[in-house]
Amino acid sequence: MCRWIAYRGETTALEHYVTSPSHSLVTQSIAALESTASVNGDGFGLGWYGAHPEPGLYREIRPAWSDENLRYLCRHLQSHLFFAHVRAATGTPITRPNCHPFACSKWLFMHNGFIGNWAKLRRRVEALIPDALYPARVGTTDSEAIFLAIMGAGMGAGMGAGMDDPVAATQTTLARLADLVGPDRMRFTAALANGRDLYAFRYAMNDRANTLYYRESEQSIVVVSEPLDKDHHNWTPVPESHVLVAKAGEPTRILPFLYVHREAAE
Amino acid sequence: MCRWIAYRGETTALEHYVTSPSHSLVTQSIAALESTASVNGDGFGLGWYGAHPEPGLYREIRPAWSDENLRYLCRHLQSHLFFAHVRAATGTPITRPNCHPFACSKWLFMHNGFIGNWAKLRRRVEALIPDALYPARVGTTDSEAIFLAIMGAGMGAGMGAGMDDPVAATQTTLARLADLVGPDRMRFTAALANGRDLYAFRYAMNDRANTLYYRESEQSIVVVSEPLDKDHHNWTPVPESHVLVAKAGEPTRILPFLYVHREAAE
Amino acid sequence: MCRWIAYRGETTALEHYVTSPSHSLVTQSIAALESTASVNGDGFGLGWYGAHPEPGLYREIRPAWSDENLRYLCRHLQSHLFFAHVRAATGTPITRPNCHPFACSKWLFMHNGFIGNWAKLRRRVEALIPDALYPARVGTTDSEAIFLAIMGAGMGAGMGAGMDDPVAATQTTLARLADLVGPDRMRFTAALANGRDLYAFRYAMNDRANTLYYRESEQSIVVVSEPLDKDHHNWTPVPESHVLVAKAGEPTRILPFLYVHREAAE
Amino acid sequence: MCRWIAYRGETTALEHYVTSPSHSLVTQSIAALESTASVNGDGFGLGWYGAHPEPGLYREIRPAWSDENLRYLCRHLQSHLFFAHVRAATGTPITRPNCHPFACSKWLFMHNGFIGNWAKLRRRVEALIPDALYPARVGTTDSEAIFLAIMGAGMGAGMGAGMDDPVAATQTTLARLADLVGPDRMRFTAALANGRDLYAFRYAMNDRANTLYYRESEQSIVVVSEPLDKDHHNWTPVPESHVLVAKAGEPTRILPFLYVHREAAE
Repeated sequence: MCRWIAYRGETTALEHYVTSPSHSLVTQSIAALESTASVNGDGFGLGWYGAHPEPGLYREIRPAWSDENLRYLCRHLQSHLFFAHVRAATGTPITRPNCHPFACSKWLFMHNGFIGNWAKLRRRVEALIPDALYPARVGTTDSEAIFLAIMGAGMGAGMGAGMDDPVAATQTTLARLADLVGPDRMRFTAALANGRDLYAFRYAMNDRANTLYYRESEQSIVVVSEPLDKDHHNWTPVPESHVLVAKAGEPTRILPFLYVHREAAE
Repeated sequence: MCRWIAYRGETTALEHYVTSPSHSLVTQSIAALESTASVNGDGFGLGWYGAHPEPGLYREIRPAWSDENLRYLCRHLQSHLFFAHVRAATGTPITRPNCHPFACSKWLFMHNGFIGNWAKLRRRVEALIPDALYPARVGTTDSEAIFLAIMGAGMGAGMGAGMDDPVAATQTTLARLADLVGPDRMRFTAALANGRDLYAFRYAMNDRANTLYYRESEQSIVVVSEPLDKDHHNWTPVPESHVLVAKAGEPTRILPFLYVHREAAE
Repeated sequence: MCRWIAYRGETTALEHYVTSPSHSLVTQSIAALESTASVNGDGFGLGWYGAHPEPGLYREIRPAWSDENLRYLCRHLQSHLFFAHVRAATGTPITRPNCHPFACSKWLFMHNGFIGNWAKLRRRVEALIPDALYPARVGTTDSEAIFLAIMGAGMGAGMGAGMDDPVAATQTTLARLADLVGPDRMRFTAALANGRDLYAFRYAMNDRANTLYYRESEQSIVVVSEPLDKDHHNWTPVPESHVLVAKAGEPTRILPFLYVHREAAE
Repeated sequence: MCRWIAYRGETTALEHYVTSPSHSLVTQSIAALESTASVNGDGFGLGWYGAHPEPGLYREIRPAWSDENLRYLCRHLQSHLFFAHVRAATGTPITRPNCHPFACSKWLFMHNGFIGNWAKLRRRVEALIPDALYPARVGTTDSEAIFLAIMGAGMGAGMGAGMDDPVAATQTTLARLADLVGPDRMRFTAALANGRDLYAFRYAMNDRANTLYYRESEQSIVVVSEPLDKDHHNWTPVPESHVLVAKAGEPTRILPFLYVHREAAE
């Protein structure tokens, strides 16, 4: 089980969220609290948007807590929308392409969860990725495969076009996954962004969903797998089977996500 | 284009072939001669057989020339059959699972070559891997996919059984690849072993095959992508479209490999 | 605070001690019990003796728990005397030369402890290393500096000669360190070997000494910073201010080490 | 022998100098031209100034040519003054602390050169570093030791104060090194900056100095160990025993550096 943080708001140095808080993401890499894996030492990653049309990525296989490059970068990189992730691997190798976040054109994605029977289902999950996006599969994780399947579902026939409705694309993809997963377990707590808008999902099949919280101010919204400080009242949980939608220039909304599907399954 | 060496013979320390000769594999990692890529600095690997029923592997993403662990291991590891490989990547990421050799049960495989249109053909090449072996695909290279396809072709219906005829399995797999590759180029200079027997292939489609040499004595046979010293008369080239078969207790044979197929294609 | 294991006895595969036991060293790398640092994820190392006159070393900056090379090597490397170490860094960088064990000619050394005021004392500790050995200082840890100081004290005038009395050399070095450390704290729980004999020290200044246990049979002795299984009655603690001496062909002895010095200090 | 580039001018993305030009620094990492070591694959580093009072650092032990993080960072990092360096090690280990540039408070330093008899002189060179700066020695290279000696010489008695005259401090340090080096060889082609001003030195003792070029426009000055493109007339060589001084708001000057000293020695 991994830990992550997503930020959208006024441009700020990443250090204020990734390395400095009392229970910062880097602290969580060596001692997470609300997680079955208290150590998240199997690599980490940053993804951020800046002046360049495509997001930046910094991914490394060392633990986040001992990476001096990460401290320098978090001081110097400033962004209005960024992701950071520390990994506890669930079977796939510790390589940079298997570290989150993943990037595809202007989209970033990161994930905390798993597909229960991945070894058996992998081939059928990878088959959800359209041919045009298969060269973008540079790693071997379930997370990357789900991301590229979402991208494929969202881009529809015109593969060059963007993804207009990422919530619908994710919903379509998870419905397809539900057919594959059957009675197995799956957990999906994920963030998706395009440089302007931020989406965060909390969902599970045949299992409890991993935790997800957010904290909002006039200047920014921060979404996290566990709070960055001990003042838990600052942090609002996102309910299971819901998606947080934080579009630029619009109020944040918490919407049901595959809620009916779960009831039907019960 | 990569460089590699395969050894079968009396048990010896790996250093006599990998790190010590004047034009050792480690020297070739920084300055190969008979190669379009003179630098093979995109990772390396050792595979060897010992007392344990399965072979050992040591793979690393650093260049071989600066890895102090490699020097210690080559002094201390002794084997009667081992592979060593330095990599010049052709597009897939620099990760340990993408470094050669690859292991599957008691088999080792390493490769110098490429599939010309890999980004387009990848999915169809991966489809040659049987379901039972797909979990063994931990990297993303064309080389690993070809190896697992050969393993699948060789094991036939009874997947648990060994591979009885690896030359036939390789022949079957390359014929299938020929159908996929069509007019594109493919180079396949590879070594395969099971702990007792060593096979080395030199083959190409629509292209010249990469170089392959061997040197034989009463004690051992060494097969290399380029000679380990400047006395080229010590080294015999393996002709294109041939396979070297060095079975334990039998004389080494150089046999035609897909020779008819090539003629038919011309 | 680090965790380590030292073995001397019948030649065996390293896996039986490093990777296989229920509370193996690799398990301790992610969840140590008798340690202030429960995670030892700042690199690791193996040192072992074999046919080559000098010991082998394998050191890596990744956590031990995710290193697939380590699992292969522990299956295949066999030795009559070996060290394994997982590191929790106390301030010096995570680099291979800062990982334990350290090697110097035929000697191996590893350490669990620290010099309290290292930043201030470093220069004076390094001054204990004789000129002839200073080129062997390839890292920046206090542990390596203490080791090379011990080597220097043991080799005396004839620098080429071996170290005849390593316990006396260690005693001399720690007495010198005591002068430098003054009222600061220092912990020194360390192992030293020359390919035949094994020495393990448990000592501290102005502080409690780190734990040290051993388990002996007719075939072997194993010395550890914490037991490899939950049957604690199998394991005998080495008392503080004592040294374990396990010479080839002699019974193991537990001897007072700087015991008087401590009393004098109280 | 290493390769490097230093930039001062209008704020720009690093990619325009580090990764994009036809003979960019990354290209030089795998195929340098004016260098005895054509491969500079022993790690690399970036140092840059931005909004934070201290410079940023990104150093990695992999070759620059295969580091995908480097490509992302060079797209996204923008700076008015930055350094980039690819390393060909001359004996010290391949670790991040041994990669250039080095940082100390607001200063950055990088180096292409060596001290001929480093193993023998190391201790005396390290003795030039004042106690207050010795904790900043986190690696083991001659380059880092020279940098910290320069910092010490420049800060004089008031160690907290800045370095007012870095050319004088470098001159003092090289004069001290000359005494130590005696008849041995030393090469020193280095860059030094404080976030506003850039200094680049070309000097050698008992040897030819390594190459150094610059290209100046109204917007910027670029100083390099070898030209970034084939139009050599764009690039002006800095003569041996000279220093380039590019202060903010002043015209660039090329001044004699230890010129008298060399004549005296001849």
